[in-house]
Amino acid sequence: MIQTDICIIGAGPVGLFAVFEAGLLKMRCHVIDALPKVGGQLTEIYPKKPIYDIPGYPMVLAEDLIKNLMDQIEPFKPTFTLGERVEKFYKEDDGVFHLRTSAGTDIICRVVVIAGGLGCFEPRKPEIPQLEEYEGKGVNYMILNPETYRNKKVVLAGGGDSALDWTIFLADIASELTLVHRNESFRGAPDSVEKVMELAKENKIRLLLKSNINAISGNGKLTGVSISDHNKSIQTIETDYLIPLFGLSPKLGPLENWGLNLDKSAIAVDTFDYSTTIPGVYAIGDINTYPGKLKLILCGFHEAALMAQSAYKIVFPNQKFSLKYTTVNGIQSF
Amino acid sequence: MIQTDICIIGAGPVGLFAVFEAGLLKMRCHVIDALPKVGGQLTEIYPKKPIYDIPGYPMVLAEDLIKNLMDQIEPFKPTFTLGERVEKFYKEDDGVFHLRTSAGTDIICRVVVIAGGLGCFEPRKPEIPQLEEYEGKGVNYMILNPETYRNKKVVLAGGGDSALDWTIFLADIASELTLVHRNESFRGAPDSVEKVMELAKENKIRLLLKSNINAISGNGKLTGVSISDHNKSIQTIETDYLIPLFGLSPKLGPLENWGLNLDKSAIAVDTFDYSTTIPGVYAIGDINTYPGKLKLILCGFHEAALMAQSAYKIVFPNQKFSLKYTTVNGIQSF
Repeated sequence: MIQTDICIIGAGPVGLFAVFEAGLLKMRCHVIDALPKVGGQLTEIYPKKPIYDIPGYPMVLAEDLIKNLMDQIEPFKPTFTLGERVEKFYKEDDGVFHLRTSAGTDIICRVVVIAGGLGCFEPRKPEIPQLEEYEGKGVNYMILNPETYRNKKVVLAGGGDSALDWTIFLADIASELTLVHRNESFRGAPDSVEKVMELAKENKIRLLLKSNINAISGNGKLTGVSISDHNKSIQTIETDYLIPLFGLSPKLGPLENWGLNLDKSAIAVDTFDYSTTIPGVYAIGDINTYPGKLKLILCGFHEAALMAQSAYKIVFPNQKFSLKYTTVNGIQSF
Repeated sequence: MIQTDICIIGAGPVGLFAVFEAGLLKMRCHVIDALPKVGGQLTEIYPKKPIYDIPGYPMVLAEDLIKNLMDQIEPFKPTFTLGERVEKFYKEDDGVFHLRTSAGTDIICRVVVIAGGLGCFEPRKPEIPQLEEYEGKGVNYMILNPETYRNKKVVLAGGGDSALDWTIFLADIASELTLVHRNESFRGAPDSVEKVMELAKENKIRLLLKSNINAISGNGKLTGVSISDHNKSIQTIETDYLIPLFGLSPKLGPLENWGLNLDKSAIAVDTFDYSTTIPGVYAIGDINTYPGKLKLILCGFHEAALMAQSAYKIVFPNQKFSLKYTTVNGIQSF
């Protein structure tokens, strides 16, 4: 049983910065994320991409921004539950919230901050018969640990940055690597496309363009995929793994049943403090919506600051608050 | 005559970042500030102070934040009018704004963004007979160029960081330096206090504590100040300059007469786009107010982003807008 002042759902940049704003006001935070590491989309989808619109950073790599935010919140000693998803949520009579994750972790808190980005990411799945039967038995939608694929036969499918980047990365790790893409051209970064074409030319990977996976086979465990090209000719490839990388589709998941005011799967909030319709529950960052909303990280930072002021009144109902500037008072760590 | 898309009044961090957000949307900016350099309070009042609450920066010196913001907006080639104050403002029939500064610079634009921080800073003036007669004739309230005081006799008055820092700085420049302070202890940084005490002990400066300036003398140009201590004993000191450093008091100045909706000398705005009651005029950063407002730099950044979306519709009324992410498209410089 974890007890904390604020439970933040989502360890992306906005959820992490909320720890800082809460910490300035002496509130402790516990952060939960369904992904196995902090950083949300930035770490999971584009760690090496440069971001240009973080104020004060002419350019920062996504993973570096997360690293810097982790350094910034370190004085406030946040605790984390990663790789688990919040499944149950109820508010007790005394106003205390009780959350339970998919792995059975219990969290007790006075304030819940939903900073879930675009929601839990659900992989977009291609339509292949029996695909779901083989999930976890050779079919994966995310590469959590590349070492899993060392000296294995791997088929990747997709034509975006993720498919290209993992092709380049796994080329040296897998014993045999195939990339299947339904079109002739890729949607990814030109230099990644170039590298993949080169790997194919050097026979380090098998590149099948204008092709689709139309069947998989195995016996309890995946053993092969069958691929058709645009001329309808079909070939079967032996493989240990099939990894369709068609992007992640955001899903609010269990949050949908909390009784929040949802507007096109975003949570409607009040711009006064980014509170939801449930007192004590706030929503900040890409997951919320309000008139003028922009899904920018820098907007989530602002939302976190205003949320913290409001949360303070719940966590410390009898204390008077005065805004303190860090230039004057610095940071008092926990 | 300067023609631009957006005229930004105030070159503090929020005004500067507005150039970036405008630039992403292909809008050009001209920035005006009454101070002689960019950075607003950060450069003028606390350049060497660490700031801890800029998201992604565990710590950044105020002057470094400004430097980084200048680097960030460089691709969008902003132009500047510094050391001038906007005095006149009118909107022409075709919706074009016409601004004129104290020095007669004319600016024509389609959108005005007021990012004036706490307003123009007016020096707090001590009550000394004839003081205003000698302004610019030996009495200054700001040190714009320290070289002005080389080999001159200078009397500084005040007990805060500004008085302490300039005492330390001018000790080697002035031929004779006196610091007058009405109390026995200072309000500034302990290490600055220590340095000033040391300079006094070494007779490099004359330090008059528990003392007040009660008269000045001269003939067209300042020549002396008369100082009384707490025992009412009076001494007269020959001097070329008297620089009272009692802080800056924010004033909205001519903006007060624009017909904006003012709430305790802040400009009331709509959080949808931080627009004022005058169409085409926005207010962002510390100068605005709305329910939940926090005077934090990071909030001003958010306000700048939402403002730019709205300004775009005025600058390019016939173009359709789509939010672009810098991680996808990078920056297209002008």
